[in-house]
Amino acid sequence: MINSLSGYKSANLIGTKGKKGENLAIFSSVVHLGANPALLGFIMRPATVPRNTLTNMKRSKHFTINSINESFVENAHHTSANFKEGISEFEACNLTPEYLDNFSAPFLKESNLKVAMKLEQIIDIKLNDTKLIVGSIENVYLDETALCENGQVDLNALKTVAISGLNRYHKVEEIAKFPYSRVSELPEFK
Amino acid sequence: MINSLSGYKSANLIGTKGKKGENLAIFSSVVHLGANPALLGFIMRPATVPRNTLTNMKRSKHFTINSINESFVENAHHTSANFKEGISEFEACNLTPEYLDNFSAPFLKESNLKVAMKLEQIIDIKLNDTKLIVGSIENVYLDETALCENGQVDLNALKTVAISGLNRYHKVEEIAKFPYSRVSELPEFK
Repeated sequence: MINSLSGYKSANLIGTKGKKGENLAIFSSVVHLGANPALLGFIMRPATVPRNTLTNMKRSKHFTINSINESFVENAHHTSANFKEGISEFEACNLTPEYLDNFSAPFLKESNLKVAMKLEQIIDIKLNDTKLIVGSIENVYLDETALCENGQVDLNALKTVAISGLNRYHKVEEIAKFPYSRVSELPEFK
Repeated sequence: MINSLSGYKSANLIGTKGKKGENLAIFSSVVHLGANPALLGFIMRPATVPRNTLTNMKRSKHFTINSINESFVENAHHTSANFKEGISEFEACNLTPEYLDNFSAPFLKESNLKVAMKLEQIIDIKLNDTKLIVGSIENVYLDETALCENGQVDLNALKTVAISGLNRYHKVEEIAKFPYSRVSELPEFK
């Protein structure tokens, strides 16, 4: 239940490469930390499955964040299984690693929105022994048709999904877009 | 653009009460930190509008997280305007404060999912001068019909919205639900 209370969550697969090969792990906690410098963060629990992701990240300082599209939600979900070390979740879940512009970590070929990340800081949250992993954005790959005039990305066009709770996947449809809010230009509220 | 890269974001209004009255501020960064203890977190930028929210929170140690429903997205969006100190965003945006079970912070009456929170920790993210605010869940209010057998909350039934970028609001529809993933029970992937 607790996992549902924050509302809808982002759906991403994080790709890393280590001594024992490639890893791909699903995360629903990737969050925007700021645009300048361009930072994203996510929460990691040391005790859960994607331990290799953290080990690889610490070693190479590089990782990728790949948004999950409707077309491969089932594959993405099962990267959460407790695979043995040395097993690549790419291979086990029929997903394709892709290397772009000499970046050391693998991207997910099937993803419509891929972000190259550099590890900046690992912040301990001592209250429950989790970590906030902070990374800076090095590069972004997406279909230009999904880039709006104002620079925002049209996630609906990319068929990006949202997650709720532990295992529910959702498609998303825009219902409203509002201008930057100014006290002097408030609408007549219903 | 950077604000769109993490994917869909949760949509919540945070309610506080201070010396100069009630405040209500929109946040798209509320994230699940862990179930035991039950913790939620969110990112706050000191330089942006909802400064009073932080002041009130530090003083009273209590705040509320109220999910945004389709029916009041426009009202919710405009709580982000830079209102003068002493102006209640509840009143300015035609939203209704509600006090429940002697909790000191105001809930949002119109919200279908309300969480009473106690401030636990404020963690500085020095890279960009933001803060991760960590709170523990004290109480939850929702319509019981939206509570699933396994305890998860059916956010679709509650008409909870998702946010993307700075100003886009989305309705959400479930497309898939998968069991806990086990290596021994993987499906045949497409």
